[in-house]
Amino acid sequence: MPYTKDQVLPPAVERAIRDSFARQGLMSTMQAQILHVGFGQTVLRMPITDAVGQQHGFAHAGASFALGDSAAGYAALSTMPEGSEVLTIEMKINLIAPASGRFLVARGEVLKAGRRLSVVRATVEAEAADGSRKPVALLQGTMIPS
Amino acid sequence: MPYTKDQVLPPAVERAIRDSFARQGLMSTMQAQILHVGFGQTVLRMPITDAVGQQHGFAHAGASFALGDSAAGYAALSTMPEGSEVLTIEMKINLIAPASGRFLVARGEVLKAGRRLSVVRATVEAEAADGSRKPVALLQGTMIPS
Amino acid sequence: MPYTKDQVLPPAVERAIRDSFARQGLMSTMQAQILHVGFGQTVLRMPITDAVGQQHGFAHAGASFALGDSAAGYAALSTMPEGSEVLTIEMKINLIAPASGRFLVARGEVLKAGRRLSVVRATVEAEAADGSRKPVALLQGTMIPS
Amino acid sequence: MPYTKDQVLPPAVERAIRDSFARQGLMSTMQAQILHVGFGQTVLRMPITDAVGQQHGFAHAGASFALGDSAAGYAALSTMPEGSEVLTIEMKINLIAPASGRFLVARGEVLKAGRRLSVVRATVEAEAADGSRKPVALLQGTMIPS
Repeated sequence: MPYTKDQVLPPAVERAIRDSFARQGLMSTMQAQILHVGFGQTVLRMPITDAVGQQHGFAHAGASFALGDSAAGYAALSTMPEGSEVLTIEMKINLIAPASGRFLVARGEVLKAGRRLSVVRATVEAEAADGSRKPVALLQGTMIPS
Repeated sequence: MPYTKDQVLPPAVERAIRDSFARQGLMSTMQAQILHVGFGQTVLRMPITDAVGQQHGFAHAGASFALGDSAAGYAALSTMPEGSEVLTIEMKINLIAPASGRFLVARGEVLKAGRRLSVVRATVEAEAADGSRKPVALLQGTMIPS
Repeated sequence: MPYTKDQVLPPAVERAIRDSFARQGLMSTMQAQILHVGFGQTVLRMPITDAVGQQHGFAHAGASFALGDSAAGYAALSTMPEGSEVLTIEMKINLIAPASGRFLVARGEVLKAGRRLSVVRATVEAEAADGSRKPVALLQGTMIPS
Repeated sequence: MPYTKDQVLPPAVERAIRDSFARQGLMSTMQAQILHVGFGQTVLRMPITDAVGQQHGFAHAGASFALGDSAAGYAALSTMPEGSEVLTIEMKINLIAPASGRFLVARGEVLKAGRRLSVVRATVEAEAADGSRKPVALLQGTMIPS
């Protein structure tokens, strides 16, 4: 199934993604939620709290990574055949600004959907109380069906 | 101060590292502890629980990343002048085996300590109930004094 | 100087980029040329020949990397003050398709232009004899003024 | 076949590696040679000449990348069944010192040899006229059988 942006996400695949997300303990611990699931893209959000902080009070790089990685993984899963599972095999993150504000919002997208491998990106933004957003982290990596 | 493996960690720097670690909310949330701090290396450990899991019951890639990133960051900080702080600017992780067992153990080390940049690595292992360990993730990245 | 996409590239900076490119022996060896230099972006092109091949006859990953890295580096340099030089400190490449065709075309762009660090991306495409292009490699990395 | 460091490289696999290397046009262009092939590791060397330089007269990041990538790829191939071919799917490089001297020497090694994926590293050193070496680049990435 070649990946095209206009393809519609089958309801069964969306359900599988939401079920899988609900089983991710770390996402619950970080109070992350799904904002959007589409074919080849997923948007997740979590509050920036002390519980995910680093030493300066910003969100820890590990929080941005985890949210971005999950967003990218489910974006990849959304383009795979029903019944698939997905694993991250590698991921690179560039941290471009301190993650301060009310929320982290991660948008994952598929750059290349392959039978053996999918290449993905995620952009993580920090959302301030006034709703404005600034990018804080950029991820690029590889997912495999498992 | 050129980096040499035989250098001794000044007590004030060790205290600064332990204080900084204690302020990392995400490390507390994940129940991470410092096992060892030395000049140019740090070892951290956390339990593998449902609270840091992914959809298959293994530890989430984000948990391995966060622990490895903190271990690598404090390894870098240990070679910087007293009073420094450290930030991750980029980090790459390769996930090489499912993170199952009782604990994740991350060993961070400095590969190149520079005035402007430090290049670091971390190895994350999963420790089983019998104490045996297997590598689950390998990180390589860059830290800057902040 | 904050980075905005609409800024105009000063002629002196464009000259400095073209002079610097002309001094890159590897770019001459690979017969690479500048197609475009703008503020925050650069496009380079080189022929796919046996001289840059790998064992299957496609362009070597090292050729895609080198072209993408130079494109990203000059994109970063274009946003720096006159008289700057630039160095790659780290770069990640995902290879998404075999690099076959007549040309490699690399488009470098700046994602975040900072005083100490710039985060960059490059997309490398293979151009066929009929002028059609397909992406073959995606790079993300960090440049510093030197 | 589980990967162990003590395993002996079958002569047919060594021949296949040397034949494959000889077909890599970019390696010939860069005058690279095989110094050593073993089970799970490969060492390559090339002269630092103007033909592989960047704008300051050091070897281009693309030269260090290409040599390190080939060394890592053949290290991976050495652990695969006879008749395999190998492709880089992603590679990250940290450049830690200017690449000046007479030679670049890249040592590739396998960190995890899997059926579907192999995780590899390479260290690239610059060798001075007196034979002394200093590390200039560190690579970590993923290879697949093709």
